[in-house]
Amino acid sequence: MTERAMSTVPPARPPVFQPGCALCSQDGGTVVWRNERLRVIRADEPGFPAFYRVVWNSHLPELSDLSTFERLHCLEVVTTVERTLRQQLQPTKINLAALGNMVPHLHWHVIARFDWDSHFPAPIWAAAQRERALEQEEAVRARLPEIEAVLRIQLPLA
Amino acid sequence: MTERAMSTVPPARPPVFQPGCALCSQDGGTVVWRNERLRVIRADEPGFPAFYRVVWNSHLPELSDLSTFERLHCLEVVTTVERTLRQQLQPTKINLAALGNMVPHLHWHVIARFDWDSHFPAPIWAAAQRERALEQEEAVRARLPEIEAVLRIQLPLA
Repeated sequence: MTERAMSTVPPARPPVFQPGCALCSQDGGTVVWRNERLRVIRADEPGFPAFYRVVWNSHLPELSDLSTFERLHCLEVVTTVERTLRQQLQPTKINLAALGNMVPHLHWHVIARFDWDSHFPAPIWAAAQRERALEQEEAVRARLPEIEAVLRIQLPLA
Repeated sequence: MTERAMSTVPPARPPVFQPGCALCSQDGGTVVWRNERLRVIRADEPGFPAFYRVVWNSHLPELSDLSTFERLHCLEVVTTVERTLRQQLQPTKINLAALGNMVPHLHWHVIARFDWDSHFPAPIWAAAQRERALEQEEAVRARLPEIEAVLRIQLPLA
């Protein structure tokens, strides 16, 4: 972020934490990048190697609980993760979701989906459609260090 | 939208349509509101009465295919639908998702979830957790005309 851009960004609100919330007490996965408002984590969900989450640091349940600036920032980070996964992996589809029924702490799932994955074209939360393709999963997993290096360059510009 | 605001909005790109795409050939539900870029539809999915979709008019698969202006506009519309559902229905949670594995034409699901609904706290695409609560569903459905009237006032400001 340039000095000029920094000077126009409103200061972050002090984060609010909720006792007992899994995303307040822990990062929720391997942190790829973070700033004072949010973090990008690798989710490590079996079957879906290119699965990242954008987690808002403060305990707020819904997108509309963010200020306009915070919301646009959060969604530009989501878009940057999506764009990088597309450029690096050419997935069949990107899936985005903010559900939070179990953990009502704003987090976005950003998932690269492949026509060979165990659930495609169903959502990952539905029943599996076929066996897992372990070799193809591993080929994606092997690309993650490079992808995350690109993300660490792209995300500060989001 | 004020005259001043209108003058700063870039003109909409001519929409692109894909032969055979269900969201290019049809609205995809009951249209609540539309402008030249997108439409908000009531989805009429059994079990989830307060289920709306924000459908981008042009056939583009991913959020990152939109220009920055288009993306912010799309997500402010999603946020306005979310905010109105929260204010009018006080749901247990809002679920947002852009999946599109079956129909790769950008559309956002905006779903008011209730702790009594057939799937809560699971995603609506997972297995049901209990029987449907038909009376409670009907009570929500009875509120939709008023909610959609509010949306038609709020959405042009998004």
